[in-house]
Amino acid sequence: MSYTAPIKDMLFVMKELAGLDEIAALPGYEDANVETAQAVLEESAKFCGEVLAPLNVAGDRHPSSWRDGTVTTTPGFIDAFRQFTAGGWQSLQHPVEYEGQGLPKLLATPCLEMLNAANLSFALCPMLTDGAIEALLTAGSETQKQTYVPKLLSGVWTGTMNLTEPQAGSDLALVRTRAEPQPDGTYKLFGTKIFITWGEHDMADNIVHLVLARTPDAPEGVKGISLFIVPKFVVGADGSIGERNDVHCVSIEHKLGIKASPTAVLQFGDHGGATGYLIGEANRGLEYMFIMMNAARFAVGMQGVAVSDRAYQKAVAYAKERVQSRPVDGSAKEPVSIIHHPDVRRMLATMRSLTEAARALAYVAAAHRDIAHRHPDATTRAEHQAVYEFLVPIVKGWSTELSLDVASLGVQVHGGMGFIEETGAAQYYRDARILPIYEGTTAIQANDLVGRKTLRDGGEVAKQLLAQIGQTVEALGAQRGAAFESMRQQLAHGQRALQAAVNFVVWNAKNDPNAVFAGSVPYLKLAGIVLGGWQMARAMLAAAGKLDEDRSFYQAKIATAQFFAEHVLPQAAALETSIVSARGGEGVLALTEDQF
Amino acid sequence: MSYTAPIKDMLFVMKELAGLDEIAALPGYEDANVETAQAVLEESAKFCGEVLAPLNVAGDRHPSSWRDGTVTTTPGFIDAFRQFTAGGWQSLQHPVEYEGQGLPKLLATPCLEMLNAANLSFALCPMLTDGAIEALLTAGSETQKQTYVPKLLSGVWTGTMNLTEPQAGSDLALVRTRAEPQPDGTYKLFGTKIFITWGEHDMADNIVHLVLARTPDAPEGVKGISLFIVPKFVVGADGSIGERNDVHCVSIEHKLGIKASPTAVLQFGDHGGATGYLIGEANRGLEYMFIMMNAARFAVGMQGVAVSDRAYQKAVAYAKERVQSRPVDGSAKEPVSIIHHPDVRRMLATMRSLTEAARALAYVAAAHRDIAHRHPDATTRAEHQAVYEFLVPIVKGWSTELSLDVASLGVQVHGGMGFIEETGAAQYYRDARILPIYEGTTAIQANDLVGRKTLRDGGEVAKQLLAQIGQTVEALGAQRGAAFESMRQQLAHGQRALQAAVNFVVWNAKNDPNAVFAGSVPYLKLAGIVLGGWQMARAMLAAAGKLDEDRSFYQAKIATAQFFAEHVLPQAAALETSIVSARGGEGVLALTEDQF
Repeated sequence: MSYTAPIKDMLFVMKELAGLDEIAALPGYEDANVETAQAVLEESAKFCGEVLAPLNVAGDRHPSSWRDGTVTTTPGFIDAFRQFTAGGWQSLQHPVEYEGQGLPKLLATPCLEMLNAANLSFALCPMLTDGAIEALLTAGSETQKQTYVPKLLSGVWTGTMNLTEPQAGSDLALVRTRAEPQPDGTYKLFGTKIFITWGEHDMADNIVHLVLARTPDAPEGVKGISLFIVPKFVVGADGSIGERNDVHCVSIEHKLGIKASPTAVLQFGDHGGATGYLIGEANRGLEYMFIMMNAARFAVGMQGVAVSDRAYQKAVAYAKERVQSRPVDGSAKEPVSIIHHPDVRRMLATMRSLTEAARALAYVAAAHRDIAHRHPDATTRAEHQAVYEFLVPIVKGWSTELSLDVASLGVQVHGGMGFIEETGAAQYYRDARILPIYEGTTAIQANDLVGRKTLRDGGEVAKQLLAQIGQTVEALGAQRGAAFESMRQQLAHGQRALQAAVNFVVWNAKNDPNAVFAGSVPYLKLAGIVLGGWQMARAMLAAAGKLDEDRSFYQAKIATAQFFAEHVLPQAAALETSIVSARGGEGVLALTEDQF
Repeated sequence: MSYTAPIKDMLFVMKELAGLDEIAALPGYEDANVETAQAVLEESAKFCGEVLAPLNVAGDRHPSSWRDGTVTTTPGFIDAFRQFTAGGWQSLQHPVEYEGQGLPKLLATPCLEMLNAANLSFALCPMLTDGAIEALLTAGSETQKQTYVPKLLSGVWTGTMNLTEPQAGSDLALVRTRAEPQPDGTYKLFGTKIFITWGEHDMADNIVHLVLARTPDAPEGVKGISLFIVPKFVVGADGSIGERNDVHCVSIEHKLGIKASPTAVLQFGDHGGATGYLIGEANRGLEYMFIMMNAARFAVGMQGVAVSDRAYQKAVAYAKERVQSRPVDGSAKEPVSIIHHPDVRRMLATMRSLTEAARALAYVAAAHRDIAHRHPDATTRAEHQAVYEFLVPIVKGWSTELSLDVASLGVQVHGGMGFIEETGAAQYYRDARILPIYEGTTAIQANDLVGRKTLRDGGEVAKQLLAQIGQTVEALGAQRGAAFESMRQQLAHGQRALQAAVNFVVWNAKNDPNAVFAGSVPYLKLAGIVLGGWQMARAMLAAAGKLDEDRSFYQAKIATAQFFAEHVLPQAAALETSIVSARGGEGVLALTEDQF
């Protein structure tokens, strides 16, 4: 099998770090106990491993293709999508009122990881559909919800998000697509949208495009953008499919990776106007988008974890099989499998520890979201929502950035074979490259972390987390052995470094915004390393108490955490120097535009 | 123009850091004065920019292709190669006795950089020919030199290096290709070689394959490998081309990048045996290879510099052109070109400073090689050869590893457009990925740095360099301003970190080889960062004295060095922690093979 979901690791994180029992005690999540979780994960692992993973290479070699406005997906995708939706996988975390299964995000997240690890290109279609569902549930009318959501959940239809235009990428203030009101209350849309993931395909009966556009009287900038439903086929009052709408796929992109996922250029209104329906109130489109954006960004962060794990699994398999050179310590006279060579071991341990840390941080974030969603106490809900929102840009930014390093190391472990496309390691290196770009680049995530997530509350959430890290540092001090001592020292250093960076951000953002924003990506990476390291520390503490249950498994958790402490956490100090001591921006901005 | 050679930067490094005047004073290099250097660089820049650079995208979209044993290169390559050799570019640094131009390596190196920046795939053909020339000059008989070298220099023929076999990659002890002696003193070769760069093509009349193989009575392992000439067409005593030899290209690889460069599988002896001629003595093939390996590894290091600079140039051009979002400091009400955003500036400064540091280190290494080659005093020659050999694995390993980061940032600067192949930024990301793998992976370079280059002389050369860094730290203290103070602090930290790592390697390699070799790649990276930072420090000191001559240019040198000090050099401490404090290997090797 080319991908085996790490169920045991996933359950460990869910139970020991993310508090699955606590989540299962929340009202509405009673079914989400350990037994259910295990059963769901096993079923998901089976489907992803057997059906979707083998199609991953096929998608790369036989990408979706465009002809005369229609897109033909990779052979096998239509059937796989039918199985995916028939298995109920689209509806896991959506509300039961609209025929969803209402499971906690903590349980849906490992399934999301598996889906993406098995087939990143395929997984994007349900991910975009999830986004459309969230937007409709957030701001749609009851009729809109009833008309679209069950169809999207069942996979009869899929959804897309239409934000980007040629001149409007990160900067949505520049959106120009027009929406002209009609006497019957509908709108006619005119414009061009680019980079529309799964914007056209042959896997579903209809495609529900959610589109950002401006009404004629809208104010300039981001406060004049509204959100519209523009279905590929107009939908009748009874939910039946009517005539073809005036939205057409004029081309798809030739991309570095995720080639099976069609990235469409959509043309609206070339034949009289595309019929659209306003969602919520006019001019509040971006606000609605931002509500659902946390979910989408979290999901892309999970793509980073997923592709990392897939690359890791492939590299480990190769390193155990490939025989080359004698060991440096003279322990064998014959060549050995390359996993015995220290640098190969170092590369694999880097891949493994980064992946585990990013996974743990994401699952913990998911649990905060569940508490924010379901806890009976409003203050508790608000507190956990704040932590979740603080973590989202880190999960998105850090997990995707590290996935580049992990996928690159995966190629390196394969040596020359890694550069040959037939081997498959190169696909992860290519696929991963989009992750720090789409759904908000790393810089956009870092701006969010600095602006909305750190400055707005004066660093309050950050400081709460830092205090909790301090408690973990203390707990590490009560354990014996080099592994715990390494982690105690490095996590303490990391905590101080992150503390200093938070203070720098809070104190300087107003007076010296350039310096702060020049250090924003380093700040995001620092936060990822320290918060990820914190989860690794919690993991080793949990493992220490369970060694008798399964010595090899829990010992590996301790060893992986030690590696993270010794080889990843030390970077925190370097980042602190760049952000704080060097005042981030000064060195950056010393070069003028002309000097570049 | 898609690539403009940075002649001014190159000359600055040659003059101020690598001592061009001193090189031009060496016997035999009298012609290599500043005026000649400038003229050669300008001519090279013109050819590379106008002829080779435009073919780079063509090579990616229309790779070399195989059919029935023959390889057809990208349209335009045949003519470009004709122009390349007609211009004398193959012969720059080769000896005048064999019709070369005998120029110093310091002058040939910027030309090599331009060639690779313009077209990495194309440049590999002359690079491999250079390797064959070096091997022949090193160990060939006078007849062999006279027969092959002038033809290789003039580009009538090209050369290849045949080392790798399916089971023998990094581990050449496993080579199995057989060479059976014939009554006439020639050999018949039988075997399969893979990953043979430019192993078959249509740009030259003949291809001179240099092949590692074993004679029947050869000892096991690396001490039983001999080196043979196996021409594609057998060469007569008068140098005329005879019958087709029994070496055939059975396929070429489908690769992640450098697609125009055909990577051949060569089959020797399927039709009775390929005629080969022994070079030098039997069983000394690997030794001969190692002599020329320094040159080949240096050249691949330059490929890292080259692709980095090309990626940087493209990213800068896009960042100056693409308009998106208002500045964070409120200095404009309208969206600005993205180079005004601090994080874009940070990415570009990272790309620029890494590229400049790697270039400076490589050129300085080239100057050491020239002194080693031409200085009248034998002791001086030996000292400089030792420094050159110490620097080669660092130039190769560090420059190529950083080229991955630089090319990746180049994609990131482009945002979503970077992921579209049409844009071109993705090609550098794909092309660069082979650089830390071929001609010895980074781990192989790091083993060389630890073993042959640090342990063998007890860290002597390393300590000499560290002492010189100390002098630069002192010189920085005499300058005023934040830039110099940042560099002084960070270079001093870096020097101490590298010192500690050298001591760790020297003291522990025998007792605890696993710990040392688990830290070998971090040690190589640390050496690269500190030695690269040292060159940046030297550059800013040189610039400080010349501000009045050209304020913008020299101020940019100071600002770029400041950025390197504040954003790259701080990583030295993190690497020291991983190598020394954490004793490298312990955390790495705590996980058993089964636990992966």
